[in-house]
Amino acid sequence: MSEGGGSVRGMDETELTRRAASDYVERLERRDWAELTALLAEDVVYEMPQTRERISGRPAFLRFNIEYPGDWHLGIRRVVADGRLAALWLDVRVGTERQDACVWLEVSDAGLISRVVDYWPEPYEPPPGREHLVERW
Amino acid sequence: MSEGGGSVRGMDETELTRRAASDYVERLERRDWAELTALLAEDVVYEMPQTRERISGRPAFLRFNIEYPGDWHLGIRRVVADGRLAALWLDVRVGTERQDACVWLEVSDAGLISRVVDYWPEPYEPPPGREHLVERW
Repeated sequence: MSEGGGSVRGMDETELTRRAASDYVERLERRDWAELTALLAEDVVYEMPQTRERISGRPAFLRFNIEYPGDWHLGIRRVVADGRLAALWLDVRVGTERQDACVWLEVSDAGLISRVVDYWPEPYEPPPGREHLVERW
Repeated sequence: MSEGGGSVRGMDETELTRRAASDYVERLERRDWAELTALLAEDVVYEMPQTRERISGRPAFLRFNIEYPGDWHLGIRRVVADGRLAALWLDVRVGTERQDACVWLEVSDAGLISRVVDYWPEPYEPPPGREHLVERW
């Protein structure tokens, strides 16, 4: 998207969404707030269902990311893009800790990210009763 | 996929994957183990990264689902399909409890589900320091 309208001519909706999803992660990782802003709809909504938190609007969402504590780093494990929807499977590192994240994106008519839903699954011990079926790693 | 090769002629890879993803949930929900079997590669691998558990092969994966305790019900919140990859955002209910799940699927050459990675994110309390940016629901 950063190259402007001309270079995206001929790309279909799914390809534009895939690029928006990849750029989103890459610009967050670079702390490139100007380029990140250019990717977000003005009325973007960010939700974390696990904590039932919602952030509304580009300024607040940018502030949230700018203020987010720790030396966090994001890597893409998988991008799945489909029309104006995408799912991102992320590898997140903060210092020596790592966590996976699952992110659900929606892209507007204008190709801007309009909704982001983040899940941050934590490790847990498996319940008993299925040891005969599983291996652990 | 259950309709056989003829009826899927003309569907592209993404549409076949989308159907496999939807059918996967729908057949699990119906406990239709025969139809679920028909959807799975013989060497399907199922992983839960949060517990570092892996189940290998169709018989063990079927057994895991058949034996899974509780009156569980699955609803699809979103399917994102992309070539041979799909992501499923599920609404899971067990009795009066509900939880979201994020599922990453891979589909083989033959249109069968060859890898399933499940995340089961749990609710948690948000850390302090971002109350000025968020609303709770």
